[in-house]
Amino acid sequence: MADPRFFDRAGPFTLAELARTSGARLWRAADSDKLLHDVAPLETAGADDVSFLENRKYLAAFRASRAGAAFVDPEMAKAAPPAMALLVTEEPYKAYAVAAQAFYPTAPVAPGSAPSAVVDPEATVPEDCEIGPNVVIEARARLGRRCQIGANSVLGAGVIVGDDCRIGANVTVSHALIGARVVLHPGVRIGQAGFGFAPDPAGPVKVPQLGRVVIGDDVDIGANTTIDRGSGHDTVIGAGSMIDNLVQIAHNVVLGRGCILAGQVGISGSTRLGDFVMIGGQGGLAGHLKIGTGARIAAKAGLMRDVPSGAAVCGIPAVPIADFMRQTAILQRLGRKKDGR
Amino acid sequence: MADPRFFDRAGPFTLAELARTSGARLWRAADSDKLLHDVAPLETAGADDVSFLENRKYLAAFRASRAGAAFVDPEMAKAAPPAMALLVTEEPYKAYAVAAQAFYPTAPVAPGSAPSAVVDPEATVPEDCEIGPNVVIEARARLGRRCQIGANSVLGAGVIVGDDCRIGANVTVSHALIGARVVLHPGVRIGQAGFGFAPDPAGPVKVPQLGRVVIGDDVDIGANTTIDRGSGHDTVIGAGSMIDNLVQIAHNVVLGRGCILAGQVGISGSTRLGDFVMIGGQGGLAGHLKIGTGARIAAKAGLMRDVPSGAAVCGIPAVPIADFMRQTAILQRLGRKKDGR
Amino acid sequence: MADPRFFDRAGPFTLAELARTSGARLWRAADSDKLLHDVAPLETAGADDVSFLENRKYLAAFRASRAGAAFVDPEMAKAAPPAMALLVTEEPYKAYAVAAQAFYPTAPVAPGSAPSAVVDPEATVPEDCEIGPNVVIEARARLGRRCQIGANSVLGAGVIVGDDCRIGANVTVSHALIGARVVLHPGVRIGQAGFGFAPDPAGPVKVPQLGRVVIGDDVDIGANTTIDRGSGHDTVIGAGSMIDNLVQIAHNVVLGRGCILAGQVGISGSTRLGDFVMIGGQGGLAGHLKIGTGARIAAKAGLMRDVPSGAAVCGIPAVPIADFMRQTAILQRLGRKKDGR
Repeated sequence: MADPRFFDRAGPFTLAELARTSGARLWRAADSDKLLHDVAPLETAGADDVSFLENRKYLAAFRASRAGAAFVDPEMAKAAPPAMALLVTEEPYKAYAVAAQAFYPTAPVAPGSAPSAVVDPEATVPEDCEIGPNVVIEARARLGRRCQIGANSVLGAGVIVGDDCRIGANVTVSHALIGARVVLHPGVRIGQAGFGFAPDPAGPVKVPQLGRVVIGDDVDIGANTTIDRGSGHDTVIGAGSMIDNLVQIAHNVVLGRGCILAGQVGISGSTRLGDFVMIGGQGGLAGHLKIGTGARIAAKAGLMRDVPSGAAVCGIPAVPIADFMRQTAILQRLGRKKDGR
Repeated sequence: MADPRFFDRAGPFTLAELARTSGARLWRAADSDKLLHDVAPLETAGADDVSFLENRKYLAAFRASRAGAAFVDPEMAKAAPPAMALLVTEEPYKAYAVAAQAFYPTAPVAPGSAPSAVVDPEATVPEDCEIGPNVVIEARARLGRRCQIGANSVLGAGVIVGDDCRIGANVTVSHALIGARVVLHPGVRIGQAGFGFAPDPAGPVKVPQLGRVVIGDDVDIGANTTIDRGSGHDTVIGAGSMIDNLVQIAHNVVLGRGCILAGQVGISGSTRLGDFVMIGGQGGLAGHLKIGTGARIAAKAGLMRDVPSGAAVCGIPAVPIADFMRQTAILQRLGRKKDGR
Repeated sequence: MADPRFFDRAGPFTLAELARTSGARLWRAADSDKLLHDVAPLETAGADDVSFLENRKYLAAFRASRAGAAFVDPEMAKAAPPAMALLVTEEPYKAYAVAAQAFYPTAPVAPGSAPSAVVDPEATVPEDCEIGPNVVIEARARLGRRCQIGANSVLGAGVIVGDDCRIGANVTVSHALIGARVVLHPGVRIGQAGFGFAPDPAGPVKVPQLGRVVIGDDVDIGANTTIDRGSGHDTVIGAGSMIDNLVQIAHNVVLGRGCILAGQVGISGSTRLGDFVMIGGQGGLAGHLKIGTGARIAAKAGLMRDVPSGAAVCGIPAVPIADFMRQTAILQRLGRKKDGR
C-alpha cells in the first residue's frame, strides 16, 4: 500500500463499483461484491489490492501476482492466476488510473495564506486559495478560485492564473497567462526573457522580449522545466499538453493541444507544433520549424526540417523512422563485415 | 502591442529618430516625420508599428504585412508592400533590437530592501539596490550599485557582485565573483561544488572543490542553468558571453569572451573555450578539451577532441561539418539503395 | 591558495603526515619534515603547496610546476622537477583528495534555526541541526542529527532525512526517505509526481503517483537535478551513488549502489541499474530496461535495450563500444572516399 505518511486512502470499493467507474467489465460476475482496499503493482499486490497489466514485459509478474484483482486486456486474461479477479478492458492502464484516482483522490485545497506569504495589496487572491509560506505574489497578479501555491514560489506582476491550478514549491512565473487546472511542478520557470540578441562586434545587442507565455487549460509542466516568454508573438502551450522535467521551450514556440514532451526535450525559438505531437526524451528541434498534427519525434532525435502531419522521425539529423532503422541496420552490418564476423 | 500588464512603453518616435538611433537609413526621405508608436511582429503589426525582416522564411509574412514601417536588408526592400516605410540596413535584426530598446527601455531599479529580506550585518548592500522579498544575503557578500535581486534568491557568504546586475527570482549564488551588468535568470545555480571524487572500492572519495566561479561583465545566464565552481583553478565565464537555459558548465571550464551557448548545452570539466565560440542546443563537450577562437559546434554534437580556431564541427563523435554532411548523405543513400528505391 | 573569502584552511602538515593520511609513500625520506601549507593545481602551486598529477594531458604542467610536493604515480616520478618532493601512489588523485580534505575540512554545522524558518510543530528537528532562513519544514517531517538545510528550501510533509545530511539552498523534497550523509545541491527536486498518464481522446488521464523516493546513505545529487517519486513501486537511489547536475530520473527507476551519472543524463521510467553503473554526460536510457552491474554507458548514448553486466556501450541506438568505433571508422572512410581524398 502507499505509504500513509504521504498518502491518504479512500475506499474500499467493490469490484462492481470499480468496473462501473473505470468502464472495464467483470470477467466473472461472481466477483462483483468482492471488496478491494487499495491499488498496488503486480509484484507487491495482495488479496485486497487491484493491479493492472499493460506492458507485456511484465507478463511473468502478472502470472505470479497475488493481486486480488487486475485490469487487463481480454487477450491477456487467460494468463491470469486462478484466484485473481479480472476487470477486462482494451485500455487497462487508463482504467487502472481511474480506479487509483478513486482510492487516492487529490487532496482538496486548504484555504488560507501563510503568515509569511508576501501578497501585494494590488494582487487578487480569492479566499479559497491556499498560499504557502514565503510565497510572493506581485502587483496586479490575479489567481482563480481554489488555487494552491507552494512554498517559496514567486508570481510576478500582472500574472493571471485560472481556477484550480496547483503550483509547486520554488516555482517562478512572470509575464504569463495560465488557464484552469494547470499543474506546475517544483522549480518550473515560466516567462523569463528568452535568448534574444543580435550579434555585434562590440557585444551582443539584446532584443527586448515583449511577448508572454500563454498556457491552456489542463496543462502539466514538469520539475525544473523552463519556458521563455515570446519576443513579440507569444509562447503558447496548448490545452491538455503534458511536459516532463527539465524541458526547454524557447521564445515564440507554439504547442498545439495535447502535445506530449518527454524529459529533457529542447525546442528552439519560433518552432510550431500542431496538436497531439509527441517528442521522446532528449529530442531536440531546431528553430522556425513546423511540425504537423500527430507527428512523432523519437527520443534523442535532432530535427532540422519540417515534419508533416502523422509522420514519425528519428535520428540526427532526423529522417523517417523506417529510413533510420534501415540506415542503422546497414551500418551495423558494415561494421561487422569489416571484421569478417 | 506588448501587453500593458507586463510592459511599459515609451515613444512615439519619428522614423527619422529611429533611423538615427539604430543606424539604419530611410528608403524614402518623405517618410522621415512619420510617427511610430510601437514595435510588433510582421504578422500582427499595424500602421503605427515598426517591424523587421531578418529570416527569409518570413518573406511571405513581410509581403503581406500591414506594418507602418520595417527594418529590412536593402536586397529585400523591393518585396515590401507599397504602404510600408522602410529602414534599410545590412543588419535589420540588430537595428530592430535598438529600436525596440527605445520603445521598451529596461525598467530602472526601485531602491530599497523588502522587509522580509535577510541581509547579514556584515554584507555590503548599497542603498540604490533593490532587494526582493525573502532574499538572503550572507556575511561579507558585497553588491555593486543599482543591483536588483529577485525574490527568494540566495547570495552566499563572500560573494561579490558588480554594478547594475539583475538577478532573477529563486537564484542561488555561492563562491563567485560576478562582474558588472550581469543577468542571471530565475533558478540559476552558481558556485556549488562540482562533480569531483576519486573512485574507491569503499565508496568515492570526495575532492574538496576549492576554486570559484568568475563571471565577466555583460554576461547573461539562462533559467535553471548550473555552473559549478572550480576544483582548484576557477571556472571562468568570459565577458559578454550569452548562455541559454538549462546549460551545465562543470568545474574548471573556461569560456572566453563573447561565447554563445544554446539551451541544454553541457561542458565537462576543465574544457577551455577561446573567444566567440558558439555551441548549438544540446551540444556536449568532453572534459579537458581546447576549443579555438571562433569555433562553431553544431547542435546535438558530441565533442571528443580539440577543435582548432574557426572550425565548424558536427555529429557524434563530432567531425568537420563538411565530413558530417557527406557521411549523412552516403548513409541516407545506402539506406535507400537497399530497398531499390 | 583557495580564496579565503570562501574557504578556511587547516594545516600546515609535514610531508610525513600527508603520506600517512593519504596512504602514499615518500619518494625521498629526506623530505619527511618538509612543511606544506596548502594544496594547489600544478600551474599555480608554489614551494609551500602540494599538488598532483593524474591525467597525462597535464604532464607538461607537471614538468614545469613549482609545487613544493606532488602526489604522482611511480611511473611518472622521473618527470618531476628536481626540487619537487614526491608522494608516490598508484592512485594520486585519491591521495590528493584525502590531503585536500585535511587542509579544507568540511565546516561543521552551526546549530540553530533562522528566525524566518517555518517549521511545523509536528516536525522533528534535532537541536544540533542548522536550518537556514525561510526554510519550510512541513508536518511530520523528521530530520536526523547535525543536518544542514540551506536557505529557502522546502521539506514536505512526512519526509525523513538521515543524520549529517547537507541540503543546499532552494531545494524541494517531498515523498522521500533519505539516508545519512546525503548531499543535495541547490535546486534539486525530489519526490514530485512523475510523468504518469494514460492517453485518451478526451485528454490524458493522470495516474496517481503513489510511490516514494528512497535514497541510500552517502548519495550526492547535483544542482537542479530532478528525481520523481515512484508510481507504485519506489524510485530508489542506491547508497554511494554520485549524480551530477541537471539529471532527470523518472518514476520507478532503481539505481544500485555506487552508480555514477554525469551531467544531463536522463533515465526513463522503471529502468533498473545494477551496482556501479556509469553513464556519461547526456546519456539517455529508454524505460523498462535492465542494466547490469558495472555496465558503462558512454556520453550521448541512446539506450534502447538491456545491457549485460560489465558491458560498455555507445551510440544511438547504443551498441557495444567496439562496434560503435568500427561503424564510426567505416562511415568516416566512406565519407572521405566519395571525394577521392
